[in-house]
Amino acid sequence: MTAAPRTVAVVAAGTIGLGWATLFLARGLDVRVNSRRPDARRLVAEALELHAPAVPGAAPPEALLDRLTVEPDLERALDGVDAVQENAPEDLELKQDLFARMERAAPADALLLSSTSTLTPAALGVRLKEPERVVVGHPFNPPHVVPLVEVVTGEAAPPELVERVVSFYRGLGKVPVVLGRALPGFAANRLQSALLREAVHLVREGVVTVEQLDTIVTSSIGLRWATIGPFQALHLNGGPGGLRHWLDHLGVHLEPFWEGLGRPPMDERTRDLLLRQADRTFGRRSFEDLSRERDRRQNAILDALGDRRHLPPPAR
Amino acid sequence: MTAAPRTVAVVAAGTIGLGWATLFLARGLDVRVNSRRPDARRLVAEALELHAPAVPGAAPPEALLDRLTVEPDLERALDGVDAVQENAPEDLELKQDLFARMERAAPADALLLSSTSTLTPAALGVRLKEPERVVVGHPFNPPHVVPLVEVVTGEAAPPELVERVVSFYRGLGKVPVVLGRALPGFAANRLQSALLREAVHLVREGVVTVEQLDTIVTSSIGLRWATIGPFQALHLNGGPGGLRHWLDHLGVHLEPFWEGLGRPPMDERTRDLLLRQADRTFGRRSFEDLSRERDRRQNAILDALGDRRHLPPPAR
Repeated sequence: MTAAPRTVAVVAAGTIGLGWATLFLARGLDVRVNSRRPDARRLVAEALELHAPAVPGAAPPEALLDRLTVEPDLERALDGVDAVQENAPEDLELKQDLFARMERAAPADALLLSSTSTLTPAALGVRLKEPERVVVGHPFNPPHVVPLVEVVTGEAAPPELVERVVSFYRGLGKVPVVLGRALPGFAANRLQSALLREAVHLVREGVVTVEQLDTIVTSSIGLRWATIGPFQALHLNGGPGGLRHWLDHLGVHLEPFWEGLGRPPMDERTRDLLLRQADRTFGRRSFEDLSRERDRRQNAILDALGDRRHLPPPAR
Repeated sequence: MTAAPRTVAVVAAGTIGLGWATLFLARGLDVRVNSRRPDARRLVAEALELHAPAVPGAAPPEALLDRLTVEPDLERALDGVDAVQENAPEDLELKQDLFARMERAAPADALLLSSTSTLTPAALGVRLKEPERVVVGHPFNPPHVVPLVEVVTGEAAPPELVERVVSFYRGLGKVPVVLGRALPGFAANRLQSALLREAVHLVREGVVTVEQLDTIVTSSIGLRWATIGPFQALHLNGGPGGLRHWLDHLGVHLEPFWEGLGRPPMDERTRDLLLRQADRTFGRRSFEDLSRERDRRQNAILDALGDRRHLPPPAR
């Protein structure tokens, strides 16, 4: 039985990498950020300042910096770590090289995790001696607040490895879901994209504005789906007869209705319309303001639902 | 200036009608339920028992019954009311007749509102002397908890009428959104259906189970969309460059990605797969239990977000 990771390398310091670094530090881990950007330490410090207060139980941002090492050399960054979370750009060749180097540099039992939102573990692992070590742990942005991590493994991944990855994320307060197999975009981004397509259609067709669309979602399906998922919602919409009743009475209408959904072009007109309307609403406020408000509201919901009651205190 | 409605008729006592009756009574209005079902009064009493505790500030269910009248005759039910909320089955001819009778029976300035989820005010109003009086006020189920009401008016509706409808719903703590025009399913149901289509696809393709799909949504996009809408979420995903940056860098990938989304058939195999998986999870629990939990969680979120702070106390 391998102990829970205590030292984690975060490869690349973009938005997602910084989010993971914030979470790992806030939950008590030692973190090595691997980045060649000369301002990497300042970037992490700024991310901690902005985001660490959104992680329950986190120490003050300054204190978290004590457990941070910034290391521009990949091999040195991975020396002796228990896990690596990779966040490089979505470039297959680049990531294939990176994972081959990660396998050589990290200990033989270190977790090799990728935040990729599009690539499969099989594709990422082609240059490794043990390709099945590569596991996708795709977070939903921002990783320090939103619980979901989609976990995708290669077919040959040993169950014990999957269990270690799930335990690692769960110990950080995340909700890991192990997918049965990988489709492009995995699950959450595909679902999101399907709704977004219709959202763009409704704005293009003049049914609603960008602002109204957001209000409609937060006041109905967003609220609903924060509490119960789409299938359980249908089950309750079916009344005491449940999903069975719903499918038998309304299921036949689904396919023809789906055929009538929008297929909007993402052309110049669409882009300009969305931006013009966005500029009249949230586009006026600062990124920092909006981010803080989003995180505050998301945490308020998680607290209200009590879904974090099993989260252990930070490790140290 | 017309005073806010004090006496409201609820036409038909199905799930949606009972939800409206619960909300209207809980918010202090006098309610006439028009139903020919001999057990109508008992149905309303049971709905109040189950649902009224979910309306903030509601008096005990027994006390609410004092303001309830059950009247099987439509004309008598509408005599002197300030507003009518119609909830008959989605049968165009039936509703056209109903609205023509409602126009004759209700006072000339009463609001004539339909809960229809599919029909337009123009279609509903063809047999009225003043067809523009018909306004759709489509709630998201259950009406006593979920804030959204999609408001759809005919093209000739006077702005003053639209304003009265919006004020009426807002005074009850609802979030009315006036749509620019009507498409089949309006907005929320179309958005919901688009996501559902991909959800069914992911289950059919073995990417996730029904239970995992629900977990994925509640742990990511549901949580997100309860706090900020899809467009504002994209804006923040774009970083400090906002939606403009997001569209310019990722927008080009949207259309090809959309083309790859699923188009699952709702055949026997799909139905059986969904039901078999559902039966292993929420399908085991009682409707009452699940409904109460859903409403409790939805209210916990609304309270946590403070979005009800402007709601006035019940009228009496």
